[in-house]
Amino acid sequence: MSNAAVIPPPHIIARKRDGLKLNAAEIEAFVRGSTDGSWADYQLSAMLMAIYLRGLDTEETVALTRAMMNSGIVADLSAIPARKVDKHSTGGVGDKISLHLAPMIAACGVAVPMISGRGLGHTGGTLDKLESIPGFRIVVSLADYRALVARTGCALIGQTPELAPADKKLYALRDVTATVACRPLICASIMSKKLAEGIDALVLDVKFGGGAFMKTEAEARELAGMMVAIGNAMGKPTRALLTRMDEPLGHAVGNAVEIAESIDCLRGAGPADLMEVTLALGVEMLLLAGAARDEAGARAKLAAVIADGSALAKFREIVEAQGGDPRTVDQPEARLPAARFQRELRASQAGYVQSVAALDVALAALGLGAGRTRAEDSVDHAVGFTRLVKTGTLIRSGDTLAIIHANDEAKAEAAEATLRSAIVLGETPPERLPLVTDRVT
Amino acid sequence: MSNAAVIPPPHIIARKRDGLKLNAAEIEAFVRGSTDGSWADYQLSAMLMAIYLRGLDTEETVALTRAMMNSGIVADLSAIPARKVDKHSTGGVGDKISLHLAPMIAACGVAVPMISGRGLGHTGGTLDKLESIPGFRIVVSLADYRALVARTGCALIGQTPELAPADKKLYALRDVTATVACRPLICASIMSKKLAEGIDALVLDVKFGGGAFMKTEAEARELAGMMVAIGNAMGKPTRALLTRMDEPLGHAVGNAVEIAESIDCLRGAGPADLMEVTLALGVEMLLLAGAARDEAGARAKLAAVIADGSALAKFREIVEAQGGDPRTVDQPEARLPAARFQRELRASQAGYVQSVAALDVALAALGLGAGRTRAEDSVDHAVGFTRLVKTGTLIRSGDTLAIIHANDEAKAEAAEATLRSAIVLGETPPERLPLVTDRVT
Repeated sequence: MSNAAVIPPPHIIARKRDGLKLNAAEIEAFVRGSTDGSWADYQLSAMLMAIYLRGLDTEETVALTRAMMNSGIVADLSAIPARKVDKHSTGGVGDKISLHLAPMIAACGVAVPMISGRGLGHTGGTLDKLESIPGFRIVVSLADYRALVARTGCALIGQTPELAPADKKLYALRDVTATVACRPLICASIMSKKLAEGIDALVLDVKFGGGAFMKTEAEARELAGMMVAIGNAMGKPTRALLTRMDEPLGHAVGNAVEIAESIDCLRGAGPADLMEVTLALGVEMLLLAGAARDEAGARAKLAAVIADGSALAKFREIVEAQGGDPRTVDQPEARLPAARFQRELRASQAGYVQSVAALDVALAALGLGAGRTRAEDSVDHAVGFTRLVKTGTLIRSGDTLAIIHANDEAKAEAAEATLRSAIVLGETPPERLPLVTDRVT
Repeated sequence: MSNAAVIPPPHIIARKRDGLKLNAAEIEAFVRGSTDGSWADYQLSAMLMAIYLRGLDTEETVALTRAMMNSGIVADLSAIPARKVDKHSTGGVGDKISLHLAPMIAACGVAVPMISGRGLGHTGGTLDKLESIPGFRIVVSLADYRALVARTGCALIGQTPELAPADKKLYALRDVTATVACRPLICASIMSKKLAEGIDALVLDVKFGGGAFMKTEAEARELAGMMVAIGNAMGKPTRALLTRMDEPLGHAVGNAVEIAESIDCLRGAGPADLMEVTLALGVEMLLLAGAARDEAGARAKLAAVIADGSALAKFREIVEAQGGDPRTVDQPEARLPAARFQRELRASQAGYVQSVAALDVALAALGLGAGRTRAEDSVDHAVGFTRLVKTGTLIRSGDTLAIIHANDEAKAEAAEATLRSAIVLGETPPERLPLVTDRVT
């Protein structure tokens, strides 16, 4: 492919080991080496550790992202006249925003080519939630992907092998060599896949707090700044919102239960906190797509596609296009998988909900089987929580704090105990903090 | 082997990545993983890079050395009544000391079980020099090794697969992942192999200067301090001499030519600088073995085994025991391989020799074919230099600066040019610096 002289891997590794800045040719050699076998796995992993400990600056990270994006096919969606804008979340608890936001945006005439991942660890995955819908296919070919975007203005699919294969290879190595938690590698991994989708612009939801990977707003801001810089450097306008992830979004945590809550959102009955973040992200998407003049215009459009049912209709259309049962959208209770039993968690005292610890809720859901701790684990789509209380609510003794959906008594009991300790009550109303704290452009 | 719970490799890698101190169980898991396959190569190399960048303290390095030593068989020479003392050099130019020092010590009644390496890069290897002797076998089994030490009080052999196999595996990975030049890894590599030899004590010749791996005395002192600490911690009394390596030792650089010079030493006709370092190391060996009461006594013994011919006889005995032609020891000129031609390098001006750059001389010898740049290269045993001038010598125009032994005209010419620039003349005698600068115990 390249006419450049081959630079020996140890030479490039040594430069990063010594804290020197790599040039684009060196970074390209590393990334090419990950897919063509010219670098051995042990050389790739030594390089990943050197990057972890020595870092990459923005220019190096842009070069890494570009090389990873170009390691496979960059989808060409130019035949589709609509602007193509995607949204990516760094992962939270109860974060079903993509499920209803994508059809909302598509209903506004902006295409949403969205390639998502599975859940791992305490955060749920969009793909796992979508697979709750009977028949829904998330594994499609690149040609099918293009056809879906052309037909419905939206695709909600999983990673295809043609897009950014270097990321797949390098991520698998990072996972087993303790080199996952490295900002430039995280940024390049996310951005290379998103930029390979064939998008025109990108909105990022960078979460921070107890239920997010980044614990502080400062960390989230750094990650957001680097990803926005990469997107813009690659000619794809990119914006990020910093959003708080201390309690789960909405009232539902799980898979099928989150689909049902997203349908509530599309019906105009979404929980306030969930809609607050949804609309803030939707505004950015419409503005980047040029589909609204200003924030007020964008909010009006988003309100309209919910009010007139066109967003819900778009979701039905997407579900049908991807092989799912479209009746799910109208009868979620009847069509989505249900757990064997429900157990109500009731308050044993009165008080204002001070906090609902997102991480504990996630671990409780994981315990029920709603998520996976290893990539090869299977997911129970039916289990999870609904009617989870929100911070600030005044609770009387005996009020419902959550409904536990479970298939196993012992697991339900463990989940109940975890959940109870996750919900803290107090005598005075807690301070209300904004969910969207900043915007990085 | 161990009953300890298996610690997942990424967990151990992450601890070193974060700069934490590893405990013995974690280090053992890493080393065991290198030979039993429980760590993948990409995990080993990520760990090596983390060690390179985060370091290991003395306690960790001792644990690493012990685990590497125990990765194979630790030779049991306890049936041999003599004290067993080895000497190791960190590598220099013209460093043939082992070749004559080992028989000198053995002639004093102290066993020398010496397992050496091949040359790589600019330093020559003891094994390559020994293979100049017709028939000499350096590849022997562990049983043969024991038998040689029992029979002649000395073995001059190459690494056997049973001793410290983890070092072989890890060194091969370090070589291709830019993790060679790391002090704790260097120390553990050297010491694990030496301690697996079954020795009672060890003397180290840690070289510094233009022709050594360590350029400064301070670096050499740190390396020496760590190796001495390891040896003593493992219950094997260890001492190190710091020795200057700015010009080649002696007058000969190559393979057969160095054997001939070592025979000169055994005949009592060794060059002053070479004998200065030889005797200093020999004194330490005899003192550690308890074969002399003090330095004066040790020097007297070493002088005696040369004067009475017993050291030379011991070398003849060793050569014969290892399959070599014993006549080589008496007729080196007739029995050692000779180059096709010799070319004399003469001074074009007069002056005092200010310096003879060891690294340049080594590169010139490498150019002739006397060494290898890659492990798979073959070595030309006949080529090299003799009668190389020494720093401080007063030279008249036309005097011989060196004799070049070569098998190829073009290579001889290149060597002549390199050698000429390596020898710097000046009007005043240079300051005479001691070769042995310090002793680390």
